[in-house]
Amino acid sequence: MEHTTNILNKRNIKLVIAYQGTRYCGWQRQKDDLTVQGTIEKTLSDFLGSPVRIQGASRTDAGVHAEGQTANFKLENCPIPTENFKEILNVRLPADIAIRSCENAPMTFHASRDAVSKTYLYTFYTNTEKDVFHHNHRWAVEYRLNPILMNEAAKFLIGTHDVLGFTSAKDERENSIRTIFEASVFQADPDEIHFTIRANRFLYLMVRNIAGTLVEIGRGRFHVAQMTEILARRDRTLAGPTAPPQGLCLKVVEYSKNVRSTLDFDACSEDTE
Amino acid sequence: MEHTTNILNKRNIKLVIAYQGTRYCGWQRQKDDLTVQGTIEKTLSDFLGSPVRIQGASRTDAGVHAEGQTANFKLENCPIPTENFKEILNVRLPADIAIRSCENAPMTFHASRDAVSKTYLYTFYTNTEKDVFHHNHRWAVEYRLNPILMNEAAKFLIGTHDVLGFTSAKDERENSIRTIFEASVFQADPDEIHFTIRANRFLYLMVRNIAGTLVEIGRGRFHVAQMTEILARRDRTLAGPTAPPQGLCLKVVEYSKNVRSTLDFDACSEDTE
Repeated sequence: MEHTTNILNKRNIKLVIAYQGTRYCGWQRQKDDLTVQGTIEKTLSDFLGSPVRIQGASRTDAGVHAEGQTANFKLENCPIPTENFKEILNVRLPADIAIRSCENAPMTFHASRDAVSKTYLYTFYTNTEKDVFHHNHRWAVEYRLNPILMNEAAKFLIGTHDVLGFTSAKDERENSIRTIFEASVFQADPDEIHFTIRANRFLYLMVRNIAGTLVEIGRGRFHVAQMTEILARRDRTLAGPTAPPQGLCLKVVEYSKNVRSTLDFDACSEDTE
Repeated sequence: MEHTTNILNKRNIKLVIAYQGTRYCGWQRQKDDLTVQGTIEKTLSDFLGSPVRIQGASRTDAGVHAEGQTANFKLENCPIPTENFKEILNVRLPADIAIRSCENAPMTFHASRDAVSKTYLYTFYTNTEKDVFHHNHRWAVEYRLNPILMNEAAKFLIGTHDVLGFTSAKDERENSIRTIFEASVFQADPDEIHFTIRANRFLYLMVRNIAGTLVEIGRGRFHVAQMTEILARRDRTLAGPTAPPQGLCLKVVEYSKNVRSTLDFDACSEDTE
């Protein structure tokens, strides 16, 4: 009878979501603009006949994509089995948002607070031919890039650092210590260079500011050592320009097996990219 | 001095064009709607300060893509070298239209009349997961498809036939004899089945009607022999539904080395897809 109990009592549902961010003003619900969170909340609310709020793991910016955004929402006294929500939502959501999975999570689960790491991919397009078919999914860089130098520089990012030099946050009083578990750059195919980064949390525009810096290194305008300089001096003016949003994709959000809410929610409210 | 003569006298310029057709109401210029031909003509006309008309090889429909559409236009007393038009147009055209190449052609060259073959690719997406990132570039088919049966059926298309059973043209008095040089279906990757067809010319909706018929065969609703039946009986009602436009891409238009205008233009004016 656990199934019945589960359905009629409170549930906390975890969603894994993919979206093409091109048409959206980012993840986060906004009063007047089309957003991914707003679209999913409206679809759920219309279907259930009562307002539903979902909590996302990452507040991706306008034009940024996701293959593995996560979110959670609570449901009470609803007879619909959790697994059915995947199809219910997919047929009702627009073609550029998909629910990848839908499952019950512990009542304490919080998609943002409980994330132990997030992985982003940034894609550079390096062919000089105009990028007709994928211009919304990669940054067409006009310079020849050396992925080996870019990868050397990326390696300096691994570890626990104050990453203030890579943020564009207005409020610099916030804690900007982050742990970067993985950072690498490689030539994925003749036309594409991929930059992958996994960290516990990210500051506002952090991946795109690092991506812009990597381009300066890859084209030879900055030395590889500039990466350590920016980390050491925590000075945004030493970093490269902010890379455009369309090259960025949130690949996956990871949680530990035994999730506990150890962080204060406000403390990670700046965790956007 | 041939260069100077060439520039100051009349030129016939051949363009190879790629575009993502999603935003456009097809190739052909229309009074009020956004089209690829209209966009290129406006860009050229604005740049040159006088009206320019271009002639395309194929009138692709709304939502259909091209990697190798061709077109030609004539230019008189213009000092700009032909090869410069590639960059001139690419920086001015929107991100979803690109000029791949730009070269002088014989004055008699006509992009549509002189084409000896066109190759189209139709892409079927067969994974049941919602196709978030490529839904504008392939047809998400809800059924399991057998590409071996589809390929067997495609082979019946090769040769010279009356293909009336695969057109949706209103005027059935037009000549519907076409020569199909190549037709094949294969599993391109675990999620995609590709249908490639090369023919001298195509009738209205011909590739999409064949693609829809191939799906019926691939899912087991039609026998492989239905393909020969449709050709023999020239009956549209025996064919499958018209496949949606987003799966279709004009890959290449071929010309013979020594192009001669042997066909009457009106005779191929129905040559659209």
